[in-house]
Amino acid sequence: MAQASAAGDARGDRAAVGRALEELAAAFGNRLVTSAAAREQHGNTLTWIPNQPPDAVVYPRSTEEVQRIVRICAARGVPIIPFGVGTSLEGHVNAPQGGVAIDFRDMNRVLRVHAEDLDCVVEPGITRKALNEQLRDTGLFFPIDPGADATLGGMAATRCSGTNAVRYGTMKDNVLALKVVLASGEVIDTARRARKSAAGYDLTRLMVGSEGTLGIITELTLRLSGIPEAIAGGICPFPTIAACCNATIQTIQSGIPVARIELLDALQVRAVNMYSKLGLPETPMLLLEFHGTEASVAEQSQRFGEIAAEFGGGPFSWATRPEERTKLWEARHHAALSNMALRPGSQMVATDVCVPISRLADCVVATQADIERTGVTAPIVGHVGDGNFHLTLLVDMNDPEDVRRCKALNERLVERALAMDGTCTGEHGVGQGKMKYLLAEHGPAALAVMAAIKRALDPQNILNPGKIVALS
Amino acid sequence: MAQASAAGDARGDRAAVGRALEELAAAFGNRLVTSAAAREQHGNTLTWIPNQPPDAVVYPRSTEEVQRIVRICAARGVPIIPFGVGTSLEGHVNAPQGGVAIDFRDMNRVLRVHAEDLDCVVEPGITRKALNEQLRDTGLFFPIDPGADATLGGMAATRCSGTNAVRYGTMKDNVLALKVVLASGEVIDTARRARKSAAGYDLTRLMVGSEGTLGIITELTLRLSGIPEAIAGGICPFPTIAACCNATIQTIQSGIPVARIELLDALQVRAVNMYSKLGLPETPMLLLEFHGTEASVAEQSQRFGEIAAEFGGGPFSWATRPEERTKLWEARHHAALSNMALRPGSQMVATDVCVPISRLADCVVATQADIERTGVTAPIVGHVGDGNFHLTLLVDMNDPEDVRRCKALNERLVERALAMDGTCTGEHGVGQGKMKYLLAEHGPAALAVMAAIKRALDPQNILNPGKIVALS
Repeated sequence: MAQASAAGDARGDRAAVGRALEELAAAFGNRLVTSAAAREQHGNTLTWIPNQPPDAVVYPRSTEEVQRIVRICAARGVPIIPFGVGTSLEGHVNAPQGGVAIDFRDMNRVLRVHAEDLDCVVEPGITRKALNEQLRDTGLFFPIDPGADATLGGMAATRCSGTNAVRYGTMKDNVLALKVVLASGEVIDTARRARKSAAGYDLTRLMVGSEGTLGIITELTLRLSGIPEAIAGGICPFPTIAACCNATIQTIQSGIPVARIELLDALQVRAVNMYSKLGLPETPMLLLEFHGTEASVAEQSQRFGEIAAEFGGGPFSWATRPEERTKLWEARHHAALSNMALRPGSQMVATDVCVPISRLADCVVATQADIERTGVTAPIVGHVGDGNFHLTLLVDMNDPEDVRRCKALNERLVERALAMDGTCTGEHGVGQGKMKYLLAEHGPAALAVMAAIKRALDPQNILNPGKIVALS
Repeated sequence: MAQASAAGDARGDRAAVGRALEELAAAFGNRLVTSAAAREQHGNTLTWIPNQPPDAVVYPRSTEEVQRIVRICAARGVPIIPFGVGTSLEGHVNAPQGGVAIDFRDMNRVLRVHAEDLDCVVEPGITRKALNEQLRDTGLFFPIDPGADATLGGMAATRCSGTNAVRYGTMKDNVLALKVVLASGEVIDTARRARKSAAGYDLTRLMVGSEGTLGIITELTLRLSGIPEAIAGGICPFPTIAACCNATIQTIQSGIPVARIELLDALQVRAVNMYSKLGLPETPMLLLEFHGTEASVAEQSQRFGEIAAEFGGGPFSWATRPEERTKLWEARHHAALSNMALRPGSQMVATDVCVPISRLADCVVATQADIERTGVTAPIVGHVGDGNFHLTLLVDMNDPEDVRRCKALNERLVERALAMDGTCTGEHGVGQGKMKYLLAEHGPAALAVMAAIKRALDPQNILNPGKIVALS
């Protein structure tokens, strides 16, 4: 195998980059952009990771054009960074070695809907809301809902999930197949459209979560779900975080097919109250949603209410009317935004650990104590059915001491989760920010396997280099 | 990367094998077996693929012992073939280059059950029935049910599924993490016990379905499900295969969370009648099962009955009493066995294509016509909710013309499925038997990616060589 090329240098081989940009300009005309504004927007990290802009941004319109970009860059050893809408949270779209960002803005179509098969084929630049808008008349929807209106390409690349994962799974469960441009410029389809297959290595799942480091996704075949006949939901206050968690465990063990079960700690409820004027009791709380028939959601809600009461929770307030339900989930989706009111002028940084659900209460309670001791402001929301929770750290980026304190808190949080057989990232991905935890999480031999796969598929290390695994 | 070693020769380097066996005998005593009977049992294929016995069989008791075996074999370039109970159907346990079979008979324990997390940790040699027997008191079960009472290690290695997959998914969806011994003898854990993670490449899904060619599974963390409060089921005759398929599509689109929906063609119903004395109408038929609460399974059954009627099916006969239901599903599980009565003295060979569900009726009907034209006996059962169906070819293995005819029929079946965007194997895996179809299914570039991964993880080509991808 070839060694990592000149792309391993801090900003790569400048002359090689220059020649690649000339070739790209000749091929793409004004769809190759090198303005400072465009470059900076494409290296934006939304977090405390410093921005590292690419040398240029190119806007392809087809798989063939992506192949052309990759071939031009590969011939010069120039890095390539795929870009959706830039909502990733761990520096995934940074260009630490320079190179060319591929922006999928112009590849945002739904190519085919196979309603009978409950699947569709889309380009990577479509966002989840735009997709569901276009699917509406089919009676089908795509259930994965990260907080941001991310692109499907980015969602697959980071193996994201969201509030529906407890019922519908994550991106790994909802991608049937991918079209991927390899580091060589060759294109592969990772699978057929059959709902299952045992025909060799699972290249689909290998690409999902590989963050553009093994190949560039140019088409996705997605599994769709039927829009439920009835949706019911509501909120249920609890005396403690532990009671929230125990009620959740019991709910899942009982086989209640809850669609969403979200934890808000008391501080998060206060922020939501301030922002969305909901007047909720400021105590730990579960927000729930049930999908099914009218009879089934009624039964699910009733059974959940009984379980909640067992753990001292309640009363469970149904949001029966759609507008009430919408208001509630908008409040949940605005949780992050509402937190700004808790510390005006601060920037939000989201953490993302996930632990076995039996350890969730311990992990959240210990983390709350740590937040208290550290003296920072950090409300908590959790996809409690999966054991995944987020602190929203409200950081004064102009105060180095505050940044240091918050970073240290996050490090302790990750260590705490790993000690509980958890993971450093439930759904945000590794990017640059979580690389340093992978050794502790996976151990040297498993990390070496990841590096071996990276070397086998991208021997020049040109695909989103400096993310997930560092090659020497 | 090192080149494939002497293991690439037909039966490997005999002197190297001899030295490895000496070392293994010194380490394992009478747990290393070289008798002809044991060797032949471990190269048994249950199909028309010729048996290719290993040179020896060894019975480890721990991950450390597996590491020891791998290190001894790796030092000599001797092939290693993992073995569960030998129910695979495509020559997975054959030893075309000789070598050592690792039989997991003595590694069959449930190590831990985490009831609150709905997971458990098991050794690879436990069978699915033994596992569920041991889980019974917890109120949990492991839902994947291939026809045979296979081992969990083999089930993960082949990415198998079964009748419950439409509701509970396949092995890829129900394995949380694996402990794997690599070709180097090093051991990795592919993931933590958290229910989801975005922390790097999905090594769990890479190993699931890799058939022992990338590593040897020595522990599995499995996702469990709650035993449903109520189970209802029944049978529903239809005028045509197409009507069965269309009713299934409508059922799934409507969001009815059917747990099992199995197709039997008229010939299969006749065989089941002969064997299990059920007196069913000899027409295409769906067997169904619903899981949930009493109210929910009643509602699901009623709604299915309405859908069936729309497509000319029915009446839908409920099997309300457990003993009726058991009789029905025993008949389904004995479908293969019952087929022997259709052609006494023949051997059964199972085919295994899977297509998008919208193409299933076309694929089954065209295949029935092909069976008729070819003049062979081949009843059909299908996991129709997934688009996966099996012919049971009843072959006279002493008649070369009959074998040739049946093989040609299977080839045409695979081509038909591939032409419909399907796969050559829905759940049986590749082994030796399906290798020749992978190029047509995946194309040269994707197959080259699989080979590159194989080379990266097993540069000597000692892990179950000659399966899935051939290395030159």
